[in-house]
Amino acid sequence: MRRKKIVTIGGGTGSFTLLSGLKKYPVDISAVVSMMDDGGSTGILRDELGVLPPGDVRQCLVALSDSSKEMRELMNYRFEEGSLKGHSFGNLFLSALEKINKNFSKGVEKASQILNVKGEIIPVTDDDTNLFLQLKNGKIIKGESEINHNFEIEKSGIRKIYLNPGAKANKKAVQRILEADLIVIGPGNYYCSIVPNFLVKGISAAVKKSKAKVVFNCNLVNKKGQTEKFYLDDYVKLINEYIGKDRIDFVTFNTQKPSKDLIRKYESQRELLVKLKKKSSKRKYRIIRANLLSNKKIKYSNADSLSNLRSFIRHDEDELSRILMMILEIGNYENIIKEII
Amino acid sequence: MRRKKIVTIGGGTGSFTLLSGLKKYPVDISAVVSMMDDGGSTGILRDELGVLPPGDVRQCLVALSDSSKEMRELMNYRFEEGSLKGHSFGNLFLSALEKINKNFSKGVEKASQILNVKGEIIPVTDDDTNLFLQLKNGKIIKGESEINHNFEIEKSGIRKIYLNPGAKANKKAVQRILEADLIVIGPGNYYCSIVPNFLVKGISAAVKKSKAKVVFNCNLVNKKGQTEKFYLDDYVKLINEYIGKDRIDFVTFNTQKPSKDLIRKYESQRELLVKLKKKSSKRKYRIIRANLLSNKKIKYSNADSLSNLRSFIRHDEDELSRILMMILEIGNYENIIKEII
Repeated sequence: MRRKKIVTIGGGTGSFTLLSGLKKYPVDISAVVSMMDDGGSTGILRDELGVLPPGDVRQCLVALSDSSKEMRELMNYRFEEGSLKGHSFGNLFLSALEKINKNFSKGVEKASQILNVKGEIIPVTDDDTNLFLQLKNGKIIKGESEINHNFEIEKSGIRKIYLNPGAKANKKAVQRILEADLIVIGPGNYYCSIVPNFLVKGISAAVKKSKAKVVFNCNLVNKKGQTEKFYLDDYVKLINEYIGKDRIDFVTFNTQKPSKDLIRKYESQRELLVKLKKKSSKRKYRIIRANLLSNKKIKYSNADSLSNLRSFIRHDEDELSRILMMILEIGNYENIIKEII
Repeated sequence: MRRKKIVTIGGGTGSFTLLSGLKKYPVDISAVVSMMDDGGSTGILRDELGVLPPGDVRQCLVALSDSSKEMRELMNYRFEEGSLKGHSFGNLFLSALEKINKNFSKGVEKASQILNVKGEIIPVTDDDTNLFLQLKNGKIIKGESEINHNFEIEKSGIRKIYLNPGAKANKKAVQRILEADLIVIGPGNYYCSIVPNFLVKGISAAVKKSKAKVVFNCNLVNKKGQTEKFYLDDYVKLINEYIGKDRIDFVTFNTQKPSKDLIRKYESQRELLVKLKKKSSKRKYRIIRANLLSNKKIKYSNADSLSNLRSFIRHDEDELSRILMMILEIGNYENIIKEII
């Protein structure tokens, strides 16, 4: 029997979680990865070496790698002193391979061989591009990192989000989307890991045309100033608009409550749990409610203190992938409904 | 039958050549490597990260690695721009592994696993130490890199060479030397790759005590200002003095003439071919004369322009290791004599 083909679209720690779970199943995985990061170690490498941003790809490499725990630890190691301070070793690894192979995607292929990657990691584009946000007051904010930390966004609101220069989709990403049985969008930061993929020319058209079922893993918490008042339906509506068609068939939605302490911590940062709106008869997608929270405590390196907090409320890789695999198997579909709703 | 055990003592490109040849034979190789480098990428990493010098070990790793050509190319890749300029990727790799494992030798072991190293690479010491030179005029020169480039040495002459702080031999190095069937010293820069090993407490005593045959691969050219007027016998005499006993049994000596152009190039830098002295009846070692020159043209990275010139006259890895293997096989000893002298 032909192995089923899953394409994931995302970036950042969301993709890391998703892929860590999916790799345990006998399916063909192609991870399409956002390429607009410009912060921290990645930003310095882009500026100084003129390479493409390695950070999001690195996380996918580590997630899908079948190599030793030591090797994975090495890839995530961050130097803590001197002129190397903040650089993750894996970023240097990808940048050196890009330089040697004179092409980022080719470098990612070599890295995948060295790290025994299960599946395929595809940078959404090979073009060197940046994310821009235009606020309703006309002001323009440049770069994923700045967008992620700018406080003016919530005051003024977003008029437009775009890439400059425009970027064309990696051909392999388009091909894999067209061949997929299941397309999985997210989890991930909405404006910085999900939307950027759909701004790349060719991705939306491919998702629109593909015969795959499409799942959106709804965010667990809203992001202050960006998706602050979003309900589940808002996320779905906007992503469908980027695709240009109501393509989302399923939405996974967490119903598990985090501990009160954790909720309080997040609320103090004005990051609230995403809610369902009242049931709408117009919905063209099924919502799969489940207990999707991870109980793991994740230790992040000091150089990455932001994700230290943000990652406390996060998806459980096993539960998430179990549900996705049930969606993939038509035969089990009724079981999901019975079991979960 | 028990596999024969070879221990090499050296560092730098000399060890790279030697090990690249030896790894083609079914023998157990332990490479004892000098740990006093403080120049270039290695020097910056020592200063900024407080790590031990990775440069010499990196060259041995690449020589003994059975992994792909791409992986070896990656290890030698040097970044060419920005704050990473001049760093070789392999140095960053070893430094990250040292940090993760909190011990340099342990990091080298992990690196050896990742790179499928045939044999064992043993840093001569795990102590953080530096090479010092006292001139006859009293002046003190600190550090291998400075020693290698200082022009005062030839005017004043060397009174003393020492380590500060003193360093103790890695226990494994001592153990392997004691168990060896053959100990191979050099090729390598006399003051910067050979002598430093014998300044580490425990190495000379182990070589003295070992029952192994000892071979010295005599340098091809003398180094300006350092070994400028050395004959073969001078090298042997001094190394035996470091060991504290006439332990050298064989000396390989090149009789092949490089091209006139190449000789002229070297002579313009005052680096002349090493000569034999007139035959001395007092010699306690056999000289094995052979055509030992490599015809390969080696491309070095721009960041390493010095070795660009210095490495034109160098040993042929296959010829050198063929002779060493004959020395190792007692039965073939008479053949060497017939064939070579």
